Amino acid sequence: MRAFYIAPFLIFAICGQSPVLAATVEPQAAVKLDPLAEIRETALKSGQAYALLESLTTDVGQRLAGSENDAKAVAWAKAKFTELGFDRVYTEPVRYPVWTRGEESLVSVSPATQKFSVAALGGSMGTGAKGVEAEVVQFDDYKNLESAAAGSAAGKIVFINYQMLRTRDGSDYGAAVISRVAGASAAAKLGARALIIRSIGTDQTRNPHTGVMRYDNTPTRIPAAAIGNIDADLLAAMIKRGKPVTLKLQLGARTLKGDYVGANVIGEITGAVKPKEIVAIGGHLDSWDLGTGAIDDGAGVAITMSAAALIGAQATPPKRTIRVVLFANEEQGVYGGKAYAAARVKADEVGQQVIAAESDFGAGRIYSLKTNLSDARLAGLAPLLRALAPLDITLGANDAGGSADFGPMREAGAPVADLQQDGTKYFDIHHTARDTLDQVDAEDLKQNVAAYAVFARFFADE
Amino acid sequence: MRAFYIAPFLIFAICGQSPVLAATVEPQAAVKLDPLAEIRETALKSGQAYALLESLTTDVGQRLAGSENDAKAVAWAKAKFTELGFDRVYTEPVRYPVWTRGEESLVSVSPATQKFSVAALGGSMGTGAKGVEAEVVQFDDYKNLESAAAGSAAGKIVFINYQMLRTRDGSDYGAAVISRVAGASAAAKLGARALIIRSIGTDQTRNPHTGVMRYDNTPTRIPAAAIGNIDADLLAAMIKRGKPVTLKLQLGARTLKGDYVGANVIGEITGAVKPKEIVAIGGHLDSWDLGTGAIDDGAGVAITMSAAALIGAQATPPKRTIRVVLFANEEQGVYGGKAYAAARVKADEVGQQVIAAESDFGAGRIYSLKTNLSDARLAGLAPLLRALAPLDITLGANDAGGSADFGPMREAGAPVADLQQDGTKYFDIHHTARDTLDQVDAEDLKQNVAAYAVFARFFADE
Repeated sequence: MRAFYIAPFLIFAICGQSPVLAATVEPQAAVKLDPLAEIRETALKSGQAYALLESLTTDVGQRLAGSENDAKAVAWAKAKFTELGFDRVYTEPVRYPVWTRGEESLVSVSPATQKFSVAALGGSMGTGAKGVEAEVVQFDDYKNLESAAAGSAAGKIVFINYQMLRTRDGSDYGAAVISRVAGASAAAKLGARALIIRSIGTDQTRNPHTGVMRYDNTPTRIPAAAIGNIDADLLAAMIKRGKPVTLKLQLGARTLKGDYVGANVIGEITGAVKPKEIVAIGGHLDSWDLGTGAIDDGAGVAITMSAAALIGAQATPPKRTIRVVLFANEEQGVYGGKAYAAARVKADEVGQQVIAAESDFGAGRIYSLKTNLSDARLAGLAPLLRALAPLDITLGANDAGGSADFGPMREAGAPVADLQQDGTKYFDIHHTARDTLDQVDAEDLKQNVAAYAVFARFFADE
Repeated sequence: MRAFYIAPFLIFAICGQSPVLAATVEPQAAVKLDPLAEIRETALKSGQAYALLESLTTDVGQRLAGSENDAKAVAWAKAKFTELGFDRVYTEPVRYPVWTRGEESLVSVSPATQKFSVAALGGSMGTGAKGVEAEVVQFDDYKNLESAAAGSAAGKIVFINYQMLRTRDGSDYGAAVISRVAGASAAAKLGARALIIRSIGTDQTRNPHTGVMRYDNTPTRIPAAAIGNIDADLLAAMIKRGKPVTLKLQLGARTLKGDYVGANVIGEITGAVKPKEIVAIGGHLDSWDLGTGAIDDGAGVAITMSAAALIGAQATPPKRTIRVVLFANEEQGVYGGKAYAAARVKADEVGQQVIAAESDFGAGRIYSLKTNLSDARLAGLAPLLRALAPLDITLGANDAGGSADFGPMREAGAPVADLQQDGTKYFDIHHTARDTLDQVDAEDLKQNVAAYAVFARFFADE
């Protein structure tokens, strides 16, 4: 048989005619694919999402909520939705405070003079121009801090040294992130003057991981910042040598007066049969400021915009409307997600949401579909699962959360799903300066687009 | 045979007696080793060099020439030499100018607002408080810059985008580093207002690589800085999109008025037979300021201090004196190396130097010994090569340079050698914030100590 094999492209090249001729050699190429298989194969060949991500990270860059680049990103998203042929492109207002970073530094002044990599936590107050200079006291984790004796950090800088564990699903994030979110108030209760945490991250680098923190109702508020894992090792080594270690922290961080009005940016591919019924997908348009927000969450923006655009370009239109929601300010308090749900509740439109899924866990391959559907709808998932199988995606538990931004819709009673991405390496670069385009594998991104396209197309036609 | 095998440690455990019994099973354990094999085996088991390196990087940290930490490092070295039992510990003055970094930043102001990682090159002037804001013009390499038409960078910021290649012996460093050393004056000749280079480094990170630059006699001097490789990719991508890219560079760098008087720190194990004949080994005590100078050149300091100390602890003393020289300010112009040679020339002691080798290429394993010896001495190397063979070190060419700091001694006529280290990953972290203790493999460090100890012991007894 070998002598008779002629590659399809050679037939085309030799004959100069339609590649339909190739079907006589490889008959399966002529089989008409159903819309799910068709969109999967189209997506796996498309560089559209990568081009969108390259544009967002190159032409806009970081998108800290309320910054100039936040407004640029909104304009970028509207223009791209329009370019991509979405039927309806609109924004909905989202109100939030504006936090800014400013200059920052952390040094040890004794017994050795060392410079540490440092980043203020989002929402932290600053130290004032003089900074905070004090001896450091180390706690192994948040629990030890919370249960420490009153006054045990009086006048000191608290250092929480918890090392986050690496997992595929990011399941240690909850245990780790409490130091970042609640550490400052817990340290303030003990009389501390500032908080330093080992970064909530799995990397072995000097990059600090920023991320949001909150002050509870503890009367005293203190500044809070993260240092990179290697820097945390150095600080711990200095402390271990036994002499008191004095640090000087300077943070120029502050929250501006008054709120900013940003926007959720929405693009729709209108359904041909039931246009008022909505399949919602999306990501968040804002990012932290240290990198260019490529994996958090430029990837989610690009994946879902492209998945919907490719469906919009199919010959057969979807029956229901596919809506891509690019949320404002997820990072500092899910402001966009809350505003989106509040607007749907107010307009009594929660029931129109057939399903929703947000892509916000990087750009790793999707391995599982989690749902929160009725038994009746679960029973009908077979065609979806068959279409996802070639992407190595299997059915997971029926306990989906809807990610951060569709969480409020889930709480309002709407069905949601989670297309779970492999997050093994996600927390190496999450919220750091290394969240840049080069971290994204173009082939993995295609798999994500294919999964979202199949998912959205299935529920649009279900 | 299997049933009769008894591991030596089991015999010891069972009998509760001297492990000499084990010799009946493994007779070679009782063979008396010659001094070369003995020092090699001792060094391979010793954690002394790692402990020295940990102390230098933790208790002192970065050692920028002329900084407070430079003086702390000199005190550290004298104390450690004394602790380690060196017979003579002394310093020799070295005079050099003091360069300081200051605050620095680089952003694009149009068409997109991006922040770049940046580090001033050592010796660069600052930009003044207002900074330099100008359109960027890209050159592929130094050669293209040097041969560009007059005025082709007038009023602009020059960006040299040469990507250094990865090799084991660092052989692309020469081709790459010309951009850093000579780029500013070449750009100034074309009317440029500042120079930005892609870092001279093989990593894919955002870490800028600093390093020394020089102004030639071009009347105009301009500030010069490096950006990380990922940032260089971003800048190149922005430029490629076709719209003019405007950058704003701010460097607080400056050279202080007047010279600083630092020191070469020297420790000696006195020879028992010919104490005036010297086997010299060493590294440089200064470092750049971004990391803690672990691989450049804390490793060289620790390796050579430990190698000599272990020889000093042997039962049979070396015939000639083993001298460890920890050089001042190698990074900014081989000031320590030049002062050391000048002092030897002045005292007519060049002829006393039997051989010299500096460890200054990181902490990777040594794979080759290069020499510059007479044929007669080369003919006698067999015992040395036999002792190095178990360390996987072979004889290289007879064209050794003596590394930077013993280069001036070689020029004065003294024999030198190079114990060549594997530098495959050296330029990933060279002169960056990532030059920290965690980059050093403790086992590889032992191999280096063993090689230097064997080398020094051989030439001490030759």
